[in-house]
Amino acid sequence: KINPDRLWDSLMEMAKIGPGIAGGNNRQTLTDEDAEGRALFQRWCEEAGCTMGLDTMGNMFARREGTDPDALPVYVGSHLDTQPTGGKYDGVLGVLGGLEVIRTLNDLGIRTRHPIVAVNWTNEEGTRFAPAMLSSGVFAGVLEEGWAKDRIDAKGKRFGDELKRIGWEGDEPVGARKMHAYYELHIEQGPILEAEHKDVGVVTHGQGLRWVQCTVTGKGQHTGSTPMRMRRNAGRGLAQVTELVHEIAMKHQPAAVGAIGHIDVYPNSRNVIPEKVVFTVDFRSHVLETLEAMVAELHEQAPGICKALGCDFEAEVVGAFDPPAFDEGCVTAIRNACERLGYSHMDVISGAGHDACWINRVAPTAMIMTPCVDGLSHNEAEEITKDWARAGCDVLLHAVVETAGI
Amino acid sequence: KINPDRLWDSLMEMAKIGPGIAGGNNRQTLTDEDAEGRALFQRWCEEAGCTMGLDTMGNMFARREGTDPDALPVYVGSHLDTQPTGGKYDGVLGVLGGLEVIRTLNDLGIRTRHPIVAVNWTNEEGTRFAPAMLSSGVFAGVLEEGWAKDRIDAKGKRFGDELKRIGWEGDEPVGARKMHAYYELHIEQGPILEAEHKDVGVVTHGQGLRWVQCTVTGKGQHTGSTPMRMRRNAGRGLAQVTELVHEIAMKHQPAAVGAIGHIDVYPNSRNVIPEKVVFTVDFRSHVLETLEAMVAELHEQAPGICKALGCDFEAEVVGAFDPPAFDEGCVTAIRNACERLGYSHMDVISGAGHDACWINRVAPTAMIMTPCVDGLSHNEAEEITKDWARAGCDVLLHAVVETAGI
Ligand SMILES: NC(=O)NCCC(=O)O
Ligand SMILES: NC(=O)NCCC(=O)O
Repeated sequence: KINPDRLWDSLMEMAKIGPGIAGGNNRQTLTDEDAEGRALFQRWCEEAGCTMGLDTMGNMFARREGTDPDALPVYVGSHLDTQPTGGKYDGVLGVLGGLEVIRTLNDLGIRTRHPIVAVNWTNEEGTRFAPAMLSSGVFAGVLEEGWAKDRIDAKGKRFGDELKRIGWEGDEPVGARKMHAYYELHIEQGPILEAEHKDVGVVTHGQGLRWVQCTVTGKGQHTGSTPMRMRRNAGRGLAQVTELVHEIAMKHQPAAVGAIGHIDVYPNSRNVIPEKVVFTVDFRSHVLETLEAMVAELHEQAPGICKALGCDFEAEVVGAFDPPAFDEGCVTAIRNACERLGYSHMDVISGAGHDACWINRVAPTAMIMTPCVDGLSHNEAEEITKDWARAGCDVLLHAVVETAGI
Repeated sequence: KINPDRLWDSLMEMAKIGPGIAGGNNRQTLTDEDAEGRALFQRWCEEAGCTMGLDTMGNMFARREGTDPDALPVYVGSHLDTQPTGGKYDGVLGVLGGLEVIRTLNDLGIRTRHPIVAVNWTNEEGTRFAPAMLSSGVFAGVLEEGWAKDRIDAKGKRFGDELKRIGWEGDEPVGARKMHAYYELHIEQGPILEAEHKDVGVVTHGQGLRWVQCTVTGKGQHTGSTPMRMRRNAGRGLAQVTELVHEIAMKHQPAAVGAIGHIDVYPNSRNVIPEKVVFTVDFRSHVLETLEAMVAELHEQAPGICKALGCDFEAEVVGAFDPPAFDEGCVTAIRNACERLGYSHMDVISGAGHDACWINRVAPTAMIMTPCVDGLSHNEAEEITKDWARAGCDVLLHAVVETAGI
């Protein structure tokens, strides 16, 4: 069993870097705070006897050797970057959970046959640079490295330049590593496990995602002296598309969600009718057909809605992954670990996207979920209990050791 | 008659300061560009033989002496600050029109009985610091100076600090000056004069305004893993209130307009359901009862709409003025000038707010409007013709001279 106090202390220590304004974290990818978090993780890994690898996307790989020099490593990890108003556990639990597995094996003097590698993937959140899961996507060969490095943030900064600036661009080619398996421990970010009083969620599938960035263009005119009938108000385009997105998601219940989280208004002046509004629609479903139907309905209806307001509508997909089904062998290893350890568990579908969704394409992969209070995540008030963290990490340890062999 | 080429050249010279990105201007109040524009205006005024006064709100007063030492001056002016994506004429025409009146009197060797003062009022636009017409409001005794100096912009900068920083805070107490009359030349910012083929608009009344800053608060949750029925999406509150504002304005046609130009979303991340949206409703009417009815309807309906979405709604009035009726004597002087000069004219109601709306409370005041292409304003593409500028400024010259006496 893992050491729950050490795991918890490490979580709290990491949370001191890039504190938020309401008890959570703002440690967005490729910021100075991200660099500081990485340095702390590297120090901890080296203290645990690991050697650190770093690839050209800034993905970090802390390796604990196995007994068989020819065996591929079992990878275990997640991400250290956070939302702008994020919590202390989303991503971090999975990375420090990987480290805790290594620390526990050190304590117990256990050498596995396969090496074990704790991973931190760069830019999982996708807030600063869309899309999410950018660097695991490049690792899995789904996204192109040059394209990924050219992503720009809202201030016009390039991903590639920012990675260099914080000093965490490595030499190792991305995706060169081969994996025996990949495990990711993560908080649920939804309400089901807590409601069902389960210690652990065994993730069998995930939702797919489409991020559709929309631009509604009207005319920037004076709010006082432009008659109502002469207006081309892009803000009303946003309003009506917001409701359309909601209706589309409701129509496809229960296997769908949809919302708009990102909205930029131009010129954003109290006495100027919005000239242009740029926003991103987030559609998800674990059923591929549903996901594609929702996007199609948006494309069918939004242009007409905007046209009726005298506005133009344009859309571009800026993030996409199809619903993943995780590896049966890995899922079984997790379920067995729950049984062996006596933790209550249930099968769940991941509502969020995770690095595991991409890695699943290149290695046998599965995920373990711990409950979170009120299902709240992507919020500084995100919270879990030490017991939940312990249960999830114990299961991770057992699944990893079963897969890595002794 | 004025010198239209000189007036036009000065407009184009001023437009070089704080250029926009699409042919217009971004010379927002209390920026370095504002300071540069002020310095140019001061130089021109001093070259025209005027002495410059500066009050503690940064209002600039360029005085040309009259023949009667006891006579109160006739003031004439507007503002040099612009919208973030503003035009070259909104405000600027009125300030440089005042200067052109003085230059023309110099050319003709005419000394008026009353002194003439060309004015530049600080922060008319209200984009960076709400409300609009801030410093003329303090001058007229409607707004309190300490309160005005504490206004903060979106970056948390204080008005008073920024005024000091750019070096344009004067010693003269605000509002100490007494005026014989105040004239303001301004572009119409609406489509009526151009459609009616009139050279000049004689402004008899103005619309009143209410800026209602609204805050909708929901819950910032994960867009993927939060079930639809558990959401408290503040973005949907914005959407429904946007449409409510439109419906309220349409219900009170033809004497009303309403829109939302300013919208800030928190945390504004693609995969976070909006936790909070702050936006400003702009309602206007030249009928006071209509204006008040619109605000009342918003207060009645918006909280319920948001409550049905699980969100809270709060509102605060951050800008307000009642519909002004301008001074009959000054209005008649303008109408007489149009007749004398042979310019076609019509009575109009100002759709926008102007410094004249406040000064009207402390001095006999009226406004002259020139057409603008397509009624477009608060847009970099704002345009007028040299002939329109000439006609408006000729009328300004005649009205000012009639009021100032020879
Ligand atoms: N786990 C998580 O929040 N990932 C970010 C990508 C997503 O929006 O699902
Ligand atoms: N003239 C003008 O655009 N003034 C700004 C105040 C307003 O919004 O009416």
